[in-house]
Amino acid sequence: MNLILISPEELDATGRARLIDHRAEHIRNVLRAEAGKVLRVGLLNGPFGTGTVETIMVDEVVLACEFEDEKPPRPSIDLLLAMPRPKVLKRLWAQFAALGVGRIFVTNAEKVERYYFDTHILEPEFYNARLIEGLQQARDTHLPEVTIVKNLKPFLETEKFPTIGKKILADPSGTQTIFQTLETGEAGHFKFFQGLEKRVLLAIGPEGGWTPYELELFKPHGFEVFGMGPRILRTDTACVALLGMISEIQRENL
Amino acid sequence: MNLILISPEELDATGRARLIDHRAEHIRNVLRAEAGKVLRVGLLNGPFGTGTVETIMVDEVVLACEFEDEKPPRPSIDLLLAMPRPKVLKRLWAQFAALGVGRIFVTNAEKVERYYFDTHILEPEFYNARLIEGLQQARDTHLPEVTIVKNLKPFLETEKFPTIGKKILADPSGTQTIFQTLETGEAGHFKFFQGLEKRVLLAIGPEGGWTPYELELFKPHGFEVFGMGPRILRTDTACVALLGMISEIQRENL
Repeated sequence: MNLILISPEELDATGRARLIDHRAEHIRNVLRAEAGKVLRVGLLNGPFGTGTVETIMVDEVVLACEFEDEKPPRPSIDLLLAMPRPKVLKRLWAQFAALGVGRIFVTNAEKVERYYFDTHILEPEFYNARLIEGLQQARDTHLPEVTIVKNLKPFLETEKFPTIGKKILADPSGTQTIFQTLETGEAGHFKFFQGLEKRVLLAIGPEGGWTPYELELFKPHGFEVFGMGPRILRTDTACVALLGMISEIQRENL
Repeated sequence: MNLILISPEELDATGRARLIDHRAEHIRNVLRAEAGKVLRVGLLNGPFGTGTVETIMVDEVVLACEFEDEKPPRPSIDLLLAMPRPKVLKRLWAQFAALGVGRIFVTNAEKVERYYFDTHILEPEFYNARLIEGLQQARDTHLPEVTIVKNLKPFLETEKFPTIGKKILADPSGTQTIFQTLETGEAGHFKFFQGLEKRVLLAIGPEGGWTPYELELFKPHGFEVFGMGPRILRTDTACVALLGMISEIQRENL
């Protein structure tokens, strides 16, 4: 835990937060903080700040918090992911938040087993806890917004992601590389479409890939297809590699 | 399993392999192969080929194998990794092989707990099975060579990696990006040092980072330091993201 995240509803009128969970344990046992110690904290979906330890007891820690005026920027990657096997997704949530994702759409696909959706891994209570774990690891405050999409076609038709600068889709059929779809040409700079947000929406299919019908559904919405060479990667490996890659390309360009 | 890998010692003089483990199970239950079916196979550390199902029984499958003349190219990334917590490394082996790594050096570091090395995860029997699993996922035949390094300083002094084109080290102190260390400048092409192999050696430190003393040890051997921005990633997330990134940059350039 490299940042202690506090929810707005945990703060009282005087800016004090009373922690009784694993954060309190971390402050006591890992940071070995004593009263008066100033810790780096973050407000969930808000700015960073400091938390001064006021009380430290076996079962609770009270922090007096002060926050900065400005929030850190929201990660400028969104992810559309065909529902992987629940045990794979279970381990991915924290990594998504750590790598930095604004929105996560978990969708159905023809090659996704229907029963994959009958899992507690898709309950907000479960995934928000894992996402917060990832934010506390990576030192970010922006909780990714998660949407579960049980029917891809109407979703793509209504959502359309009109303002997003780049929409890219990983598929073995792709002949371009990710660098080519992001058009990192001249001096390595993105050529985002004029007037659009500098965001990238990354779509990743199921283990068996998108079907030709599904690939056709994506095309009218401006998704460009790219491949990752002859190696076949597991969904979790591909997700982490691609999210890391896009955020490094963005850091290079923004 | 996207490729069935066969070890040279499993082949008899007529090129037949008798499989009795999970590969036989996969051929029977997932591929639902019958006698006569031709399967894509690979020879461990050798070429791809075909395996014709000759016998298929409850407890064994016999494949008559023929291999191509040429081996696929060996992955041109090597990894030097400070020993992570055993449960983290346990899950990484298969991903290393899937992403494609030529050599893996698992090293000690000042911030690595000594007891991390007392684990079956570092036994060849354990990691080779996981590496082969990753190769069978990604469709590769090159088994990464693993070296366990219990003392970093003499290792760096004797090994020196003299022929490797690029040696890069991920550390929060790095002010360059990975793209800058790989000098993907002009037309996006690597500027490898003349006369050196087109390989990249990536060094990744422990969760707490390399110490200043360790960073100094790496410098005379030509390691260039890069950072990954303000986010602090777990070792497993960083490894997968960086290996994926380097192999995409290599695909773009080679």
